[in-house]
Amino acid sequence: MNVLEKLRERTGELVDLDCVAMLLSWDQLVMMPSDGADARSQQLGTLARLNHERARDEVLGEWLAELEGASLDGVDGDIVRLARRDWERARRVPEELAAELASAGVEGQQRWQEARAADDFAMFAPALERNVQLAREYGACVAADGLTPYEGLLGDYDFGLRADDLRRLFGALAEALPPLVGEAERCSPPRTLEVPVSAQQGAVAGTLARLGVDPASWRVDVSAHPFTAWMGRGDTRVTTRYSDGNVESLLSSLHEYGHALYERQIDPTLARTNVGRGTSMSVHESQSKVWENHVARSPAFAELMAGELGAAGFPIAAEELYASMVGVQRSLIRVSADALTYPLHIILRFELELALIEGDLEVAELPEVWRQGVRRLLDLEVPSDALGCLQDVHWGAGSFGYFPSYALGCLIAAQLWEALERELGPREQDLRAGEMGAIQAWLGERVHRHGRRLDTTELVERATGSPLSIDPFIRYVQPLTQPRH
Amino acid sequence: MNVLEKLRERTGELVDLDCVAMLLSWDQLVMMPSDGADARSQQLGTLARLNHERARDEVLGEWLAELEGASLDGVDGDIVRLARRDWERARRVPEELAAELASAGVEGQQRWQEARAADDFAMFAPALERNVQLAREYGACVAADGLTPYEGLLGDYDFGLRADDLRRLFGALAEALPPLVGEAERCSPPRTLEVPVSAQQGAVAGTLARLGVDPASWRVDVSAHPFTAWMGRGDTRVTTRYSDGNVESLLSSLHEYGHALYERQIDPTLARTNVGRGTSMSVHESQSKVWENHVARSPAFAELMAGELGAAGFPIAAEELYASMVGVQRSLIRVSADALTYPLHIILRFELELALIEGDLEVAELPEVWRQGVRRLLDLEVPSDALGCLQDVHWGAGSFGYFPSYALGCLIAAQLWEALERELGPREQDLRAGEMGAIQAWLGERVHRHGRRLDTTELVERATGSPLSIDPFIRYVQPLTQPRH
Repeated sequence: MNVLEKLRERTGELVDLDCVAMLLSWDQLVMMPSDGADARSQQLGTLARLNHERARDEVLGEWLAELEGASLDGVDGDIVRLARRDWERARRVPEELAAELASAGVEGQQRWQEARAADDFAMFAPALERNVQLAREYGACVAADGLTPYEGLLGDYDFGLRADDLRRLFGALAEALPPLVGEAERCSPPRTLEVPVSAQQGAVAGTLARLGVDPASWRVDVSAHPFTAWMGRGDTRVTTRYSDGNVESLLSSLHEYGHALYERQIDPTLARTNVGRGTSMSVHESQSKVWENHVARSPAFAELMAGELGAAGFPIAAEELYASMVGVQRSLIRVSADALTYPLHIILRFELELALIEGDLEVAELPEVWRQGVRRLLDLEVPSDALGCLQDVHWGAGSFGYFPSYALGCLIAAQLWEALERELGPREQDLRAGEMGAIQAWLGERVHRHGRRLDTTELVERATGSPLSIDPFIRYVQPLTQPRH
Repeated sequence: MNVLEKLRERTGELVDLDCVAMLLSWDQLVMMPSDGADARSQQLGTLARLNHERARDEVLGEWLAELEGASLDGVDGDIVRLARRDWERARRVPEELAAELASAGVEGQQRWQEARAADDFAMFAPALERNVQLAREYGACVAADGLTPYEGLLGDYDFGLRADDLRRLFGALAEALPPLVGEAERCSPPRTLEVPVSAQQGAVAGTLARLGVDPASWRVDVSAHPFTAWMGRGDTRVTTRYSDGNVESLLSSLHEYGHALYERQIDPTLARTNVGRGTSMSVHESQSKVWENHVARSPAFAELMAGELGAAGFPIAAEELYASMVGVQRSLIRVSADALTYPLHIILRFELELALIEGDLEVAELPEVWRQGVRRLLDLEVPSDALGCLQDVHWGAGSFGYFPSYALGCLIAAQLWEALERELGPREQDLRAGEMGAIQAWLGERVHRHGRRLDTTELVERATGSPLSIDPFIRYVQPLTQPRH
């Protein structure tokens, strides 16, 4: 084997280990008997250690040095470029720091859980303090030249994003969205449906089948929190959950389908290389949001889904189903927020985690500053920290820089959808008929096939012809602020 | 960490990797969409490579050298002893031979499949020739001092077994069993039942629940071939299969339950060490046969299972159910053989594979010698190689030395069951009532808890007070040769 082949083989091995870890997690959340948890966490720990060890292996550095300056064609060039990026990132983190981050993350999650249950921020503060400190150190390690520690952290999820870009985008959004909320609440009030689980199950199965979900290469299961796992090109697994009285299962199925389709439409020649996966958290989230916000939450697709619900024994008017999916109501809790106010929850978290990492905000001040933020962005009073700054696990687990991708996903999805309809024409007819080929193909061509060859910013610009902007998203939510007939 | 701790940690890591591979295989056979096969085989290949690499790691040799002569108490002593055994075995096989064995096994399976479909032994002969040659080389590598290559091969499944012991046991069985067959066929004729799948499912669930199978630490699923997987102490997974018209599902569920119980009752302090698993293939098979032959195929337990079938909507007399489970009829096919004639199929395979490896039999002669053997042992004519020497995958896959464990399992089970009833008294009452505690506890104490601390021969002698013998098995099948009322 020449050195490039060796490098490719090693990246293939790391891909295999990632897939194996993903299967273990899928199994844990979907199939595993509860008493298997301890052994599973040992197994995942061993896999993570082996993966990390091989990802920062000296020999990779030797191969990369040999390949320095070699002229390689397209894909091989990207494989080497990303192998270097990943290897350097892995090497920059001292073993002790990596170990401390891991244990602080586990510890922090426990403290967070206890503190949230007791609604007592002080119980969580020391662990959060430690996590902020460690994240700052870690961010400084991995930040390439000229980047700040927070930008280093961002790089784990969205390589190349700059804090200033986020400040600008989220700043504009924080100006543009709040004035729309009141109108939207009036014109698009929340509406709940009492759809029996059996009808939801039938409608989810029927709808996904129309999108090409077939048992030869898909699984659809139930888990406490919906998620998607992929174990190779021919093995995609989405989950959803059912509860009486709402149609979250339909929205979440479409959301997860978007994640899945992204991974499935990556150029097959990139399979089992370090380039053959989704490029970033925000682009991944955009793919789920295309299907959740722009397909599922459209009047045309509501007709199709209403038909599926009817076939499953729950006749419903498309307008009624649509209304139940686009209702707007400000709330304190991110995970149950509607499509319009959701980004406001993210902006708050971005502002606060940036300030924490940059040292502009003390952990002790967090609850009060959170309250102020919720007042400013959502015009709501936070009655308790459990419903305020203690609601999300992320910071307890040591994740900083992750939140922005949730809102970026909404923005990118809107921008992609506008570009798609600009080029292909309005898609109402397709959505109504369940003809998804053109949409799938456009996304495949513009977004999916590239895998990691393009980073977030470049991908968005190439796919849509413009830099990332908030305008398409604002145009997307506009109809919610208008009276419907 | 001191050197013993490092060794323990490494063996723990290897246990984790084994469990992970087992989960991947379970998933492949039970859950995976069919198009996931290629990626899964890559993932399993990567895991096997990493496992092999770490199992033969130089550093293990250094640690073992440091521990040479150290006085260690019980379990630690066994951990070091078995780590040395496993490491030396792994080191003795040249990398090229290991690679050739792997590829010849895959190739051989394909040739075997084609040859069996075409009923053409000549298509298979060259691949079998190669597998025999490679197995001979491999057996010679791994055979410790004084052992033959065939004994080396046996050691992969049943460490410490000697070919002479097998010749003696199987020779005696080949004399004792055939004269019983005719009487058994008259007194215990095969009887088929038409039990709907739904009743079988209910009865399997009900019966397993009485044995302690609960969803907190078990799964029961369906697969094409029943098997058992364990991913840690609290995560045991058995599978079965259902077809209309027989009650194989009940027998196979009990069989797999026996494998599962063995792993579950190993001393918890041995978990995640190289000692904490079943000691050999034959002892494992004995544990499945205890539950299949001695529990499920007993008149008393038939009463319990008949009750479960009745509760599931299929009323049946216990005698009738019992009769359907113990019918005897000579046949050409191993996998569908009854409890009495099954070992005769194994004896034939043992004789032939031993002769192949020792060079006393040419591959070209195999079909004819097979026919002679079937005549001698079963008094049947083999009409085609597809129903003769081409029926099993094992030799095509390169497995030699595996077959004996199937028959040894029957013998060991019978000997254990006699010892159990000698000590605890007859168990009819327990079986009738589904009171399994005493049986489980006896097996746990005498067999399970030891894990790999005792090898097959020593384990059997200690558990039963006598060396392995065919007599208990002959006594077990005797009632089948007597008229029943």
